[in-house]
Amino acid sequence: TAIENFLVKKCGEAGKKIHTARSRNDQVLTALRLYEKDALAEMMESTSQLIKKIEAACAKYGKIPMPGFTHTRPAMPTTVATWLGAYAESLKDDQVLLKAVAGMLDQSPLGSAAGYGVPVFEINKKMTAKELGFARVMENPIHAQLSRGKYESSIVHALSQVMLDLNRLSSDLILFSMPQFGYVQLPEGVCTGSSIMPQKKNPDVLELIRAKYHVVVAEEMKLKGIMGNLMTGYHRDVQLTKEPVFTSFDLTAASVEMMGLVVGGMRIDAKACQQAMSPELYATEEAYRLVKKGVPFREAYRQVKSKLGK
Amino acid sequence: TAIENFLVKKCGEAGKKIHTARSRNDQVLTALRLYEKDALAEMMESTSQLIKKIEAACAKYGKIPMPGFTHTRPAMPTTVATWLGAYAESLKDDQVLLKAVAGMLDQSPLGSAAGYGVPVFEINKKMTAKELGFARVMENPIHAQLSRGKYESSIVHALSQVMLDLNRLSSDLILFSMPQFGYVQLPEGVCTGSSIMPQKKNPDVLELIRAKYHVVVAEEMKLKGIMGNLMTGYHRDVQLTKEPVFTSFDLTAASVEMMGLVVGGMRIDAKACQQAMSPELYATEEAYRLVKKGVPFREAYRQVKSKLGK
Amino acid sequence: TAIENFLVKKCGEAGKKIHTARSRNDQVLTALRLYEKDALAEMMESTSQLIKKIEAACAKYGKIPMPGFTHTRPAMPTTVATWLGAYAESLKDDQVLLKAVAGMLDQSPLGSAAGYGVPVFEINKKMTAKELGFARVMENPIHAQLSRGKYESSIVHALSQVMLDLNRLSSDLILFSMPQFGYVQLPEGVCTGSSIMPQKKNPDVLELIRAKYHVVVAEEMKLKGIMGNLMTGYHRDVQLTKEPVFTSFDLTAASVEMMGLVVGGMRIDAKACQQAMSPELYATEEAYRLVKKGVPFREAYRQVKSKLGK
Amino acid sequence: TAIENFLVKKCGEAGKKIHTARSRNDQVLTALRLYEKDALAEMMESTSQLIKKIEAACAKYGKIPMPGFTHTRPAMPTTVATWLGAYAESLKDDQVLLKAVAGMLDQSPLGSAAGYGVPVFEINKKMTAKELGFARVMENPIHAQLSRGKYESSIVHALSQVMLDLNRLSSDLILFSMPQFGYVQLPEGVCTGSSIMPQKKNPDVLELIRAKYHVVVAEEMKLKGIMGNLMTGYHRDVQLTKEPVFTSFDLTAASVEMMGLVVGGMRIDAKACQQAMSPELYATEEAYRLVKKGVPFREAYRQVKSKLGK
Repeated sequence: TAIENFLVKKCGEAGKKIHTARSRNDQVLTALRLYEKDALAEMMESTSQLIKKIEAACAKYGKIPMPGFTHTRPAMPTTVATWLGAYAESLKDDQVLLKAVAGMLDQSPLGSAAGYGVPVFEINKKMTAKELGFARVMENPIHAQLSRGKYESSIVHALSQVMLDLNRLSSDLILFSMPQFGYVQLPEGVCTGSSIMPQKKNPDVLELIRAKYHVVVAEEMKLKGIMGNLMTGYHRDVQLTKEPVFTSFDLTAASVEMMGLVVGGMRIDAKACQQAMSPELYATEEAYRLVKKGVPFREAYRQVKSKLGK
Repeated sequence: TAIENFLVKKCGEAGKKIHTARSRNDQVLTALRLYEKDALAEMMESTSQLIKKIEAACAKYGKIPMPGFTHTRPAMPTTVATWLGAYAESLKDDQVLLKAVAGMLDQSPLGSAAGYGVPVFEINKKMTAKELGFARVMENPIHAQLSRGKYESSIVHALSQVMLDLNRLSSDLILFSMPQFGYVQLPEGVCTGSSIMPQKKNPDVLELIRAKYHVVVAEEMKLKGIMGNLMTGYHRDVQLTKEPVFTSFDLTAASVEMMGLVVGGMRIDAKACQQAMSPELYATEEAYRLVKKGVPFREAYRQVKSKLGK
Repeated sequence: TAIENFLVKKCGEAGKKIHTARSRNDQVLTALRLYEKDALAEMMESTSQLIKKIEAACAKYGKIPMPGFTHTRPAMPTTVATWLGAYAESLKDDQVLLKAVAGMLDQSPLGSAAGYGVPVFEINKKMTAKELGFARVMENPIHAQLSRGKYESSIVHALSQVMLDLNRLSSDLILFSMPQFGYVQLPEGVCTGSSIMPQKKNPDVLELIRAKYHVVVAEEMKLKGIMGNLMTGYHRDVQLTKEPVFTSFDLTAASVEMMGLVVGGMRIDAKACQQAMSPELYATEEAYRLVKKGVPFREAYRQVKSKLGK
Repeated sequence: TAIENFLVKKCGEAGKKIHTARSRNDQVLTALRLYEKDALAEMMESTSQLIKKIEAACAKYGKIPMPGFTHTRPAMPTTVATWLGAYAESLKDDQVLLKAVAGMLDQSPLGSAAGYGVPVFEINKKMTAKELGFARVMENPIHAQLSRGKYESSIVHALSQVMLDLNRLSSDLILFSMPQFGYVQLPEGVCTGSSIMPQKKNPDVLELIRAKYHVVVAEEMKLKGIMGNLMTGYHRDVQLTKEPVFTSFDLTAASVEMMGLVVGGMRIDAKACQQAMSPELYATEEAYRLVKKGVPFREAYRQVKSKLGK
């Protein structure tokens, strides 16, 4: 209505024609999809930046040995390059998904009107799709309606995968920067003090990133709940499917950026890592050496275990 | 252990060597990923079959006019081809996702052992990956661990999108086969009677498909909950990430098959559809005819509305 | 800090003593619990108002017969009193939960400080609890921390139960006000028109209430996700557990109020209801009459079914 | 049908009358509610047992000092009694909820038949309710239908609260039994070895309990998803609301029992705890001592912080 009033003021009566062959519905949907395409492209870019920062940290600290854990127990030796590099690999998986989702939704819904197309007038959907930069036209207007909330849930799922990587990297960093470990020193800028305890340096930024994973997951659930058990065609319920996408993009973009600051600014303490390389971490290696000499694995396992007094 | 015992029995002492360079962990993970690749390929095939059945129904009944609804209210005219065809289009979107996920996880984790690789022995990961039919090797063993539950959540998300399409088609079919509508007659085989009401023919199969969407969504949530807030490395928690994938594939495969039976066996009642084409459905068309004659849209809208006594 | 600065300005140096024996942490938590107690009390009151409005509608329209549905199919006769009254009963169940949750959390956390109590100073927790109107003191400060996000998830669960009732009543009202049913006429004030279709009166308010159920459920999930897999003690993650409670109270309160307007303003169309009482609805009754005459039930069932030509 | 056949065999023709005034629907629902009442009573009992075991551990080890953590950082001194005792308190909160839910659902649905009562025959609902041990009758048969899945979601929510306590206690125990902490020694019986690493003792049982919290949460979501957006009256969808309740009771009961074994069998290492009491844990106490001498808190905080070199 604001646009129409503006045009009437500018162009007189001809302005009133702007509303022809348009529905609030497909205008809002088209704008949403344009936003989503942009935001997905930005997410590709910002995750690439984060991958680069992780790879830079690997280049700097990669050779430092550190304990690998299973079941939250020291397990076998690993290196900073393997540990941090795994997150870079994992983010590349996420980019595969982000790209697939972006390709899937690159369809112009303009012309679907309220979900049943535009009667009387011939609409050139291909032309508007091309002008708006969409790869193709969503020909079936009911398909456009079925995609509402659904494409959005795929977007938020892809974002939740990025957030899961950040959640787990946060969990590692929070643990490894405890005094009991000390492998990592977090940059001051991402830590805060306590209102009551003078000694504290708390990893607030990492805790917030960790928690926001669950927010994004819940936003995905919201979308999946809203659209279930509904007949075809637009419902006002659909209005509530927009905010979860905005929220999820905002939280994920902020989290990726903050994690870049953490990874870029943190220091790996080579000495603390080295001191953590206890003999038990090499138990498997020792067993395998026996195997190489011809001892069957289960026998070698028993020997090493008994030697360690377990 | 069963395999080892079998080999020892067959080959004597040499059988004990089978365990070398292997962990329960990466064997289970490799088997899981092989299963997932197969099950995704089958899902591509079975959704293609369903798309064909929908397109066959469109070919048979497509030209029949029927009311299009918005806000669960009669809105504008549409056709059976547009209505049913939208589900075929929507399933094609799902196939884009299924294919992307299948491509993403086509990586051999064999050789990652307990998440920190195999010491002492040189393992030829490329060879085993090739033999097993994987497109590439997961080089970083911690990456293999990070992928656990995570790839699974992407699979189950993709399945949930298929299930959402079936959920909404079920919702349509349950409504449109009510006596108040009568557009659709469901095949007898997918309906059941009541233990107390002699007149009933209940759309049980469609109700179960509808409900199973929510089961699959919950399985996805389960995966996303389990993996959150955990440090890297294998945790026994991961064991609970397998069942949701099996359950989701089973439910989705069964639902796709059952929906094929429904779509293949249902009849569209052309007469009931025709009778439902009330004048109000053409109100937008009428307004647009006035617009074509030069009346501004808002004015035309007001004229038609007043004519309809609204 | 704002309060401290204010006191210093007012009282001079003595103002600086306000911070003693206080942590941001337990002040925020105490304020939150006071808010929750108030908001729960208001929810008891507003659900009582809604129950009254439903009972008033039952008093007005209760005797009107209407079809009861199972499997979205006409099943047996019922009345408006039974149909609407069921929602009043269901809301009373919710009040049992709301009350239980309110009772459970009526504990003062003040004095728990950062989760490990206040050293050096003797704090009179009972006195502050009494002044603030809490029923009792949370003596164990770690218990106070464990309750964060957890009590909130119980609150939001209780609200989700209210929302489920509203969701299902909305679903009924949206369906029963379709022209194909016509049992209910919604008040104009809760319906909106279409930007393109002149004839439309859309039940937007009911659709939004329906959708908001899923928002509240997702907020509950958010809380349950955030708190999982964390060691004891405060984490910054907890900060994200406040907003879901505020959002859920706001949405639920607004939905209860809007539903009151709908129920208070709607009309039941006795004639449309009467016309919907088709003979099939009485099939079970007919079978039971035969049973009363001595026919075994399964035999009576078969007779009536065959008479109806099924 | 099995019962009817049995009766016909036993009593002849009179057996066929058993079906009168009964629907599969309300028989299944009544049986389910009887099961739920029993299972809730058992859960009250088994959580009480666990509380006792926690209190016994407090009696045995309670006075041992240990570090309290916030933000996963050493914060202030606490004791084993405060730490473990918090879980006993938290479980008592859960019992408030369990009891409230048990009270809410203590209503006999028998006689509601398919959701619209029994025609022709006079049913004595009060008599059957009394015989079956229900506190009261669910008079409104549509209320009985609305309660399906809904009561179940309240049950599973209450169970999820128990599981959250166990999840967090598991998280504590997994961390505190790491060699880096060593406060806790887990009983051998709840730990397992590794197939490849000879030195490992993994806390598998605690990891499974931790993960099962998320399973129970997902089961709750399943229930909340299935019932949304449905009109009143029985739907076959409801069939899928039973399994989540059984699963959740089974998992929670097993987890409570296993946690009892862990708590009953674990040892607290007083020496390791004592060694962990670093000076920084007393920073707040030191600041408060200064406050007691008249130093304003913020000033005392600054002094202690600077003394600690932070």
